Amino acid sequence: MTMSIIAPASPVVDVDAPWRCEELVGRVDRALGEFIDRQATALSDISPVLNAAVAGVREAILLGGKRLRPAFCYWGWRAAGGAPDSTSIITAASGLELLHAGALIHDDIMDGSDTRRGRPSVHRRFAAHHGGNRYVGSAESFGTAAAILLGDWCMAWCDQMLDECNLPERRVRPARTLLHLVHTELIAGQYLDMVEQARGGGCVERARTVIRYKTAKYSIERPMQVGAILAGADAATLAACSAFAMPLGEAFQLRDDVLGVFGDPDVTGKPAGDDLREGKATVLVELARRLATAGQRAALDRLLGDPTLDSSGVAALRSLITGTGALAAVERLIDRTTEAALQALDRAPFATQASQVLARLAVAATSRQA
Amino acid sequence: MTMSIIAPASPVVDVDAPWRCEELVGRVDRALGEFIDRQATALSDISPVLNAAVAGVREAILLGGKRLRPAFCYWGWRAAGGAPDSTSIITAASGLELLHAGALIHDDIMDGSDTRRGRPSVHRRFAAHHGGNRYVGSAESFGTAAAILLGDWCMAWCDQMLDECNLPERRVRPARTLLHLVHTELIAGQYLDMVEQARGGGCVERARTVIRYKTAKYSIERPMQVGAILAGADAATLAACSAFAMPLGEAFQLRDDVLGVFGDPDVTGKPAGDDLREGKATVLVELARRLATAGQRAALDRLLGDPTLDSSGVAALRSLITGTGALAAVERLIDRTTEAALQALDRAPFATQASQVLARLAVAATSRQA
Repeated sequence: MTMSIIAPASPVVDVDAPWRCEELVGRVDRALGEFIDRQATALSDISPVLNAAVAGVREAILLGGKRLRPAFCYWGWRAAGGAPDSTSIITAASGLELLHAGALIHDDIMDGSDTRRGRPSVHRRFAAHHGGNRYVGSAESFGTAAAILLGDWCMAWCDQMLDECNLPERRVRPARTLLHLVHTELIAGQYLDMVEQARGGGCVERARTVIRYKTAKYSIERPMQVGAILAGADAATLAACSAFAMPLGEAFQLRDDVLGVFGDPDVTGKPAGDDLREGKATVLVELARRLATAGQRAALDRLLGDPTLDSSGVAALRSLITGTGALAAVERLIDRTTEAALQALDRAPFATQASQVLARLAVAATSRQA
Repeated sequence: MTMSIIAPASPVVDVDAPWRCEELVGRVDRALGEFIDRQATALSDISPVLNAAVAGVREAILLGGKRLRPAFCYWGWRAAGGAPDSTSIITAASGLELLHAGALIHDDIMDGSDTRRGRPSVHRRFAAHHGGNRYVGSAESFGTAAAILLGDWCMAWCDQMLDECNLPERRVRPARTLLHLVHTELIAGQYLDMVEQARGGGCVERARTVIRYKTAKYSIERPMQVGAILAGADAATLAACSAFAMPLGEAFQLRDDVLGVFGDPDVTGKPAGDDLREGKATVLVELARRLATAGQRAALDRLLGDPTLDSSGVAALRSLITGTGALAAVERLIDRTTEAALQALDRAPFATQASQVLARLAVAATSRQA
């Protein structure tokens, strides 16, 4: 059920999904659709062979996603006094969704994931495209290669959308500098995560560093700052974005980690227990290891990362993780970091409406079921 | 042997390697080294784990390459009247080498190439890094994932270098628009090439379309135009860049195709016959197919793409390709397109010194042995 609250001085907020307010998802999807249409036309002029490639990008982009990064970018803009009806900020913010799509396409290759949001991942789709066209050579290699290229396109097009936002250069220039940082930090976070998994985890603090770069900065802090700086934010406003976004981003990823283990597959759209089968070194798992008794620890080490784990194995791990007290500890950490974000929001020099929506976004992003 | 000609009104030109003149390779390498140093410092502050990743980029970038794209960018700048001693153009031009490094890193994954310039490719290096650190999981997957991320960094850093070139915004802005096209066209060319190989080739015209996007625009036309536009080039100068660069780019790639089959491995640094073992659908091979008698055609189809081809098989294919007349036809095409480029250069409104060097670049790039 979806409820809306409408107050005279406040925007329409869907309490279950506040990123939808001000029709943001629709506006972002339209901007992305129009951008991809223009690329499709230009690329089709080069060769109709490229139509399938652009269709792959379109499907990867437009078939789902909360548009969380564009939402934080837009509300960063509003927080710094940007106008609600600006199409410029929608264009710039939508670019972040392209970057995200590119990162996910590449991530699915790296993880060997066959699905994304319940549908075949891009490399699987293009492996099937290879078969359907009776191409020669390895279908799997073709799929991987196509997905590398499509991800490269998406990442480059993020920068192009920012450049096409039509705001004055004195605003776009510092936003572009921030966007360079976004690229660098996102990939740094991905690399740290990969090495952490390859080391087999073993450290709560390192797992939290991964979260900071892979999620907090990339998904929340930098998008907000890009929006704020496009609206002409001063240093104090940008610092307030960080003070709000960093603890919130940590809480958001911790919620993701909890859902990865305890989430309902019907709601999350992800198979239950995949993180456990991969042996993903999340903060939740590292805390469980740290808090475990010797007996619990032995059982954890035996089950975590077992690719053949069935539903009873998943259930055993869930009860082990709960039994160590790690689940409760992570829930407390989520509460504490969300609270820190909300306190920072109270002190932030943000426009009132933006603060109201950001508070709802914070609660929704950290208490979600999917 | 390397000769230099020094004339009062003309720059020092190394006739064997004109891209080296004005110490361009050294200046580009210094700019790249300094840029990577700065990224290394910032990334090491995030985590020393990232040091190995940045070292991988540094090695991929600084261990070779003719710096051809920066050279054409620089001479596009000079052609449009840009100053010889500008550090700005070196910064902007060097970014193109980062893009190229990223494309090669991703290309080596896509092709499953174990070496690049006689050394292990990035994904192989990082697979070895996995083993050396006794990481858990698949070394091969780790290597691929690391190489995807390093390529992503390089591609993003190309744009960052352009933004850091310190030229006036009215110059950088149109250059940035061109750079977006470079990204899009490069990837389009790669995708077209991949599909063409997967179709098993069979068409000279399609092979020439691949060349136009994958090489002529990406390696020569767009780099020159980026340089020219940064120097304030007008539409006529930009059109003259195209008129020179497009036929030259085609000739350049055709020379590459010939070297891929007939080149001396000691000079090219590439194993003899790899293109033949892959069954690469180059213009040379497609012309051989088109010109072949029925008997030659059967032999071509039997040998091309045979991954176990030994040196006698390579020799047989060489003599078949020569026998069909395809080698001579491609050499004529190289002559004709190079000549078209030089004639366009004669008509171009370029600064005199730049025209002189560009003429040498054109001859060197199309008559090279490696």
